[in-house]
Amino acid sequence: MTDTTIGAIDAIEARRTTNLFDPTRGIDDAQIQELVRLATTAPTSFNLQNWRFIAVRTPEAKARLRQLAWDQAKVTDAAVTFIVVGQLADHRVLPERLAPAVAAGFMPAAMVPGWEGAAKSLYHGQPQRQRDEAVRTATFGAGTLVHAAQAMGLGTAPMIGFDAPAVAEAFGLAADELPVLLLAVGHAAPENWPRKPRRPLAQVLSLV
Amino acid sequence: MTDTTIGAIDAIEARRTTNLFDPTRGIDDAQIQELVRLATTAPTSFNLQNWRFIAVRTPEAKARLRQLAWDQAKVTDAAVTFIVVGQLADHRVLPERLAPAVAAGFMPAAMVPGWEGAAKSLYHGQPQRQRDEAVRTATFGAGTLVHAAQAMGLGTAPMIGFDAPAVAEAFGLAADELPVLLLAVGHAAPENWPRKPRRPLAQVLSLV
Repeated sequence: MTDTTIGAIDAIEARRTTNLFDPTRGIDDAQIQELVRLATTAPTSFNLQNWRFIAVRTPEAKARLRQLAWDQAKVTDAAVTFIVVGQLADHRVLPERLAPAVAAGFMPAAMVPGWEGAAKSLYHGQPQRQRDEAVRTATFGAGTLVHAAQAMGLGTAPMIGFDAPAVAEAFGLAADELPVLLLAVGHAAPENWPRKPRRPLAQVLSLV
Repeated sequence: MTDTTIGAIDAIEARRTTNLFDPTRGIDDAQIQELVRLATTAPTSFNLQNWRFIAVRTPEAKARLRQLAWDQAKVTDAAVTFIVVGQLADHRVLPERLAPAVAAGFMPAAMVPGWEGAAKSLYHGQPQRQRDEAVRTATFGAGTLVHAAQAMGLGTAPMIGFDAPAVAEAFGLAADELPVLLLAVGHAAPENWPRKPRRPLAQVLSLV
């Protein structure tokens, strides 16, 4: 344990959405890779890992994305805007996705067909569930990327204001892929709002 | 900053799904409330906060939920299993949800109708988008709850193996609410697996 960053609870408390980025400060590809490596530690159903991250970071590509995203300045002002992609859940990929856990010696090989069968029973021929899982998986990944960026001192802005079919077309998404959200990441400008107040706990929590 | 917990990056690295919980160790309601308070710092579209958390923590309620969740032992072995609920996105709640940001003085009141209009243009008469937003919001909240629990030394297990309509019925969800996932939280037993290996970064990250 060599982590000398902000404490985990403080990082959660300190997070706010960054609307204004410093357009003069980029981040390098190694940091983008580290952000996505950390993002993919997030949990996915059956370890499907049905996600993909497109890091849009050249001026040309960011401008192209901004045109499809309500012309929001943060798409181009941020150092990188990720297209966080979810893939329709498909049980058939599980043997490949679980093979490293079997190879590592903790998951019995005999358990894999059972997981594949359970995933098939959930998703096969169930397009709404396949889509829900694509959205859940991409969002779990994006959420962890937000926390990783926060720990590195970077600001983040999740966005859903964009033309999803046009983004899918322009950035080469496959037929089984959805652009679940955009996530701008970069150095925050000083003038951002604080985190907006939240609903009282009594309105959102029931104890049973 | 008084946080003396694990560093934020270490907490992300250390997270793994807990399948085996110590059924003898509970957590108290104050800790449940703190977990949900931290969870609701997560971002939501337009600050809709279209989520709800049902903390299922009595033996009777956990047993009832387990019957509807493939009889998974972790539902009852964990100290608490949350039903993380997403609400279909509805622009009409925005004036109420944004009022505290206006009252706090940083959001101009004149900006609220514009946000409401943008949310209406996205969601009104768009049931798939309303549902996608319910899933995204609940998952962002659950993801932050996972990280908060990790920082407190607790284990977590997201679950999608459950009978969603039956859970909605048994736990009194409204017509516009979906049980997006179950999230077991508690003290981990010693025998859990490590985190399963992830796909190579080259398979999940594109730089453009």
